[in-house]
Amino acid sequence: MAKDDKNIDKKIIDNIKALAIDMIDAASSGHPGIVLGAAPILYTLYARHMNINVKDEKWINRDRFIMSAGHGSALLYATLFTAGYNLTIDDLKSFRKVGSKTPGHPEYGITPGVDVTTGPLGQGFATAVGIAMAEKILSNRYNEKKKGIFTSENNLFDYNTYVLCSDGDLMEGVSYEAASLAGNHQLGNLIVLYDSNDVSLDGKTDLSFKEDVLKRFESMGWHTTLVKDGNSVDEIDKAIQRAKKVTDKPSIIEVKTIIGNGSLLAGTNASHGKPLTKEDITQLKSTLDVRAIPFSVSNEATQEFRTMITSRSGSKYSAWAETLKGFMGKAPDNVKQELTFLSKNNLAININLPKVMWQFGDDFKEPLRDTNGKVMSVIADYVFNFLGGSADLATSTKTYLPKHSNLNPVSLDGRNISFGVREHAMGSILNGLALSGFRVFGSTFLSFADYLKPAIRMSCLMNLPVTYIFTHDSVGIGPDGPTHQPIEQLAMLRSTPNLDVYRPADAREVVGAWNSILRTHKPSALVISRDDEEILTNSNIENVAKGAYIVRKEVVRLSGIIIATGSEVSLAIKIANELYKNGIDIRVVSMPCVEKFLEQSENYKEDLIPFGYKTIVVEAGSNFGWFRFVYNEKYLITIDKFGVSGTKEEVLDYCDFTYDKIKQKIEKLFR
Amino acid sequence: MAKDDKNIDKKIIDNIKALAIDMIDAASSGHPGIVLGAAPILYTLYARHMNINVKDEKWINRDRFIMSAGHGSALLYATLFTAGYNLTIDDLKSFRKVGSKTPGHPEYGITPGVDVTTGPLGQGFATAVGIAMAEKILSNRYNEKKKGIFTSENNLFDYNTYVLCSDGDLMEGVSYEAASLAGNHQLGNLIVLYDSNDVSLDGKTDLSFKEDVLKRFESMGWHTTLVKDGNSVDEIDKAIQRAKKVTDKPSIIEVKTIIGNGSLLAGTNASHGKPLTKEDITQLKSTLDVRAIPFSVSNEATQEFRTMITSRSGSKYSAWAETLKGFMGKAPDNVKQELTFLSKNNLAININLPKVMWQFGDDFKEPLRDTNGKVMSVIADYVFNFLGGSADLATSTKTYLPKHSNLNPVSLDGRNISFGVREHAMGSILNGLALSGFRVFGSTFLSFADYLKPAIRMSCLMNLPVTYIFTHDSVGIGPDGPTHQPIEQLAMLRSTPNLDVYRPADAREVVGAWNSILRTHKPSALVISRDDEEILTNSNIENVAKGAYIVRKEVVRLSGIIIATGSEVSLAIKIANELYKNGIDIRVVSMPCVEKFLEQSENYKEDLIPFGYKTIVVEAGSNFGWFRFVYNEKYLITIDKFGVSGTKEEVLDYCDFTYDKIKQKIEKLFR
Repeated sequence: MAKDDKNIDKKIIDNIKALAIDMIDAASSGHPGIVLGAAPILYTLYARHMNINVKDEKWINRDRFIMSAGHGSALLYATLFTAGYNLTIDDLKSFRKVGSKTPGHPEYGITPGVDVTTGPLGQGFATAVGIAMAEKILSNRYNEKKKGIFTSENNLFDYNTYVLCSDGDLMEGVSYEAASLAGNHQLGNLIVLYDSNDVSLDGKTDLSFKEDVLKRFESMGWHTTLVKDGNSVDEIDKAIQRAKKVTDKPSIIEVKTIIGNGSLLAGTNASHGKPLTKEDITQLKSTLDVRAIPFSVSNEATQEFRTMITSRSGSKYSAWAETLKGFMGKAPDNVKQELTFLSKNNLAININLPKVMWQFGDDFKEPLRDTNGKVMSVIADYVFNFLGGSADLATSTKTYLPKHSNLNPVSLDGRNISFGVREHAMGSILNGLALSGFRVFGSTFLSFADYLKPAIRMSCLMNLPVTYIFTHDSVGIGPDGPTHQPIEQLAMLRSTPNLDVYRPADAREVVGAWNSILRTHKPSALVISRDDEEILTNSNIENVAKGAYIVRKEVVRLSGIIIATGSEVSLAIKIANELYKNGIDIRVVSMPCVEKFLEQSENYKEDLIPFGYKTIVVEAGSNFGWFRFVYNEKYLITIDKFGVSGTKEEVLDYCDFTYDKIKQKIEKLFR
Repeated sequence: MAKDDKNIDKKIIDNIKALAIDMIDAASSGHPGIVLGAAPILYTLYARHMNINVKDEKWINRDRFIMSAGHGSALLYATLFTAGYNLTIDDLKSFRKVGSKTPGHPEYGITPGVDVTTGPLGQGFATAVGIAMAEKILSNRYNEKKKGIFTSENNLFDYNTYVLCSDGDLMEGVSYEAASLAGNHQLGNLIVLYDSNDVSLDGKTDLSFKEDVLKRFESMGWHTTLVKDGNSVDEIDKAIQRAKKVTDKPSIIEVKTIIGNGSLLAGTNASHGKPLTKEDITQLKSTLDVRAIPFSVSNEATQEFRTMITSRSGSKYSAWAETLKGFMGKAPDNVKQELTFLSKNNLAININLPKVMWQFGDDFKEPLRDTNGKVMSVIADYVFNFLGGSADLATSTKTYLPKHSNLNPVSLDGRNISFGVREHAMGSILNGLALSGFRVFGSTFLSFADYLKPAIRMSCLMNLPVTYIFTHDSVGIGPDGPTHQPIEQLAMLRSTPNLDVYRPADAREVVGAWNSILRTHKPSALVISRDDEEILTNSNIENVAKGAYIVRKEVVRLSGIIIATGSEVSLAIKIANELYKNGIDIRVVSMPCVEKFLEQSENYKEDLIPFGYKTIVVEAGSNFGWFRFVYNEKYLITIDKFGVSGTKEEVLDYCDFTYDKIKQKIEKLFR
């Protein structure tokens, strides 16, 4: 490499560093340490490897970059700006301000070139595994040679997924879970750059993290490389080149860097999360190939950087566009449609599930989880990108799609993912798959929803159409005991912003829930009973989308209302029918989705639950959140303590949740 | 080893297997796979290694055994029964029944010999790391040679912590996090037996788990051994012997077993979680050295097993009792008192914090997290077993105890634990420390409470006095953006059974919260603002324990009530003072702990928030859970959507949570 090349490398890197430091200074907030330590890594990646088109930022075959160390946002934005993405200096100046394109941590949908929301450590890493997994599925599905549609050597999908991660990302359990699964899936298209600087927020990493990280990744089937000099663009470049050649293993490149390199606080945790002092910025800039003036940009640097990117990616993009054209000319209509869905990341799913479903007979009764499995199997017939899996509980949650195989390196048509006992990574990987155009689901027991809450929150923040399926949804599961019996999990899910939580009462409501989920481009949780649920006389598929509706109308004169969900709906109807004999005329409202109900018009809500009538809620879970509908606590028939190990009957009795006890309580309320 | 010994080994193992299988059969529920696969491991451990006293099950220097694969409960109970713990055949017959000593998964406090509640995979493993860490601290603190109190060669503390874990345990991120930290802490007293049977619930583990597990543990600084024949008591024994000799590394022994060994379903996931058929039980028993009759017990087997245990542990126990006697004779009073606290696991903490605290001046104003740090430092002066740490955020949460060092292998007097970026393992390890007599705390940001919810739930299930400290408690943190801004986390915590959630408003309430926490033997969360909070005129230390009290009394005639918590209390007072000028006479109730308030008498509650008055809640978080106190949603001034990155002022404006907007809303409610 000529001397000039090295000079221009340094100039661009210095330019990026200075911009990012100015951003942090202007915001009086941010993380200079990673900017100064990892700028050469990001530069090398974008200058020499990332296949992107800054004019077509959503190009479906673009290489993905995930800043898992999301606190490195300033570095990322400065790099993206310099690379020519649709960002201005003013955008950089509004770093960390409301309404800017440059929020405090990278946010999906806000900044051109940002593919994933990151910040909570470990999430970006794990989500990247889902994105890499998606490429494997897509390339297997649409690359021409395999499909015989097209004879070109070019591929529709052959993107790489790059990650920058920190020590902190690797300490998080979710990154381990995802890394282990990535090894299993032989994700050769995943290349992780590990910014290894021996420092985290509280000090030297050896306080708590002395692992041989590369050996650990080797043990999980990864290709590993060490780059000793994190300032050497050539060394980093060579390591990435080697990693790209390894196609049957994910790669991790440990790059030794100095946190806050060049600042007066270099090498210490003091440089991690606070803006540098004015003095430090001045001395720093004097060592960089930049001007001292804040936000001054070297035209040479930006032009050269953009040329590097275009000269590499441009031809690749044109060839790809040609490939796509050829493909679209020859591909069957349904395949063309699929690609359109995927590229717009807008899945206009509109199957009429009731019509495609088999007809349930009146005497239909089976475990609701089995019914749900059947419905999902039908959905998979109609929705080409419907796939998912379970955290080693498919056998119990019944979410395995029976007509499809297991997804693995030799069966990339598979639509069932064995996530292993890794609930948390399951959630994050589902997010990655959803970001790549898939309509995904993941299942476990409701009590283990706790394990993946952080990933659910990311789905909600990014508004991704991920469906979390939670079975074994109450203490009614019995003998496994309180560790396996959910109490507060429905409250946890319902309190999460932007999550629709469905708890259907019978087979029809399961269909209705799926219909509503598939028509909604957002995250949802589907909470399903393990037990037999008969078809209710008045349950209704379409009404589920309204969140609540009447399943037992008062016969003569309304005495009061019971709101119930899931298994408790049939119980409520039975009790209402019995109490009618005693002159108590109760309306039963099934409320499979509280969130959807709250979106209805005031008229609809008032018609359903008219003001001034005694209203009771019956649900086998925490009362937390249900006060909204009732006068006081007495009207909440719920379970607010941990359960106990025993037979179902024993446990329900222990929780005062038997038919008799509930009936008595309700009767008392009407006395 | 003589032939007879082998025969008796087999006889006892077979006896244990048959009992456990009978238990599962009687309960029609349970997990036979692990019983038949791992019985030789448990047998070897108890027969040849565990130093226990079945008559003194809480002996503080007993070896601990944690069945991390909690679904192996039948195997554990059958082993404990055979070992002579206070369990009867009737207890075994009531396996998985309400009120029995033998619940579906092991539960702390219910079964003699069960040290930890387990079931959700990974938790037992991670909790064991805390228990092993505790031994390091205790032995450093109380063993005589070091203290010069006693000259005996014997130690007060030198217990080992043994774990049986499954493939599933090792797939969980929390076990990785804890294992990595265990390596750092060189926990030579921790020995993990890994029941490696290549099968998990959904099938062969290689579907999702192909790691070289031992290599992975090596990379984290563990001693590793492979036992190829899981039926060989001698091989397992030798591996444990070797592990015990390694004192500066935790050990993992991979024992290759056959799941459901001897059953018709041996080696398959079908044997994992369902009772065996009658036919299978019959054929199985015909191959075992047992009688066919259910629950028949070989006296020879139980006697021999108990003799093995007593002949080893008995002398150790007597020697220890002597050591203790000598120690108690010579140790200073405070040290004696400490040991009494620890051995009873009952920490009668009763410091009068207000008295020991410095006096806050009227103009006192500082970030509440700093105040909290100071209070904690005072507590550490008075409470010998108060220790804890942070998930790499001590610098921000301010929970580092400044008079104490970092806990590590060369500084075992340290009371600050650097957990690394491992929130989840932090929670589980805190549980282990609490189970060992420590009064522990762990801190991170409130938005990351999600990461450790599963561990919090275990604290609550076991009723352990763990204090979770969550700072950066609202969108007010500003620029870091929505990933770091809590919204629904307070709701999540408050909806968890058996957790007291404190959100103090000022320095006095911080002291009051700690007082209440220290006097309560249960888990709590302490939610602390990052920001400056001045001392409120009428805040009160003692009233915090009542959960809520008046901080601004109406002046003349009550117009209505504002309930507020944390930072919002001073805001509410300011607004109330302002509105008084417009003739609106508002009472402000500070409610630092909803749970404590709900425990108060109806009179107290009614006096504070009298019926029939407009009641408003102001809290910078989700309204979920607050409907309990208000007439309808309009009276909830909360934040129910995700935040945004920006300056504090911008973010509060975006969330309609500025002084002006809140004042306007309240004013409107009184029009």
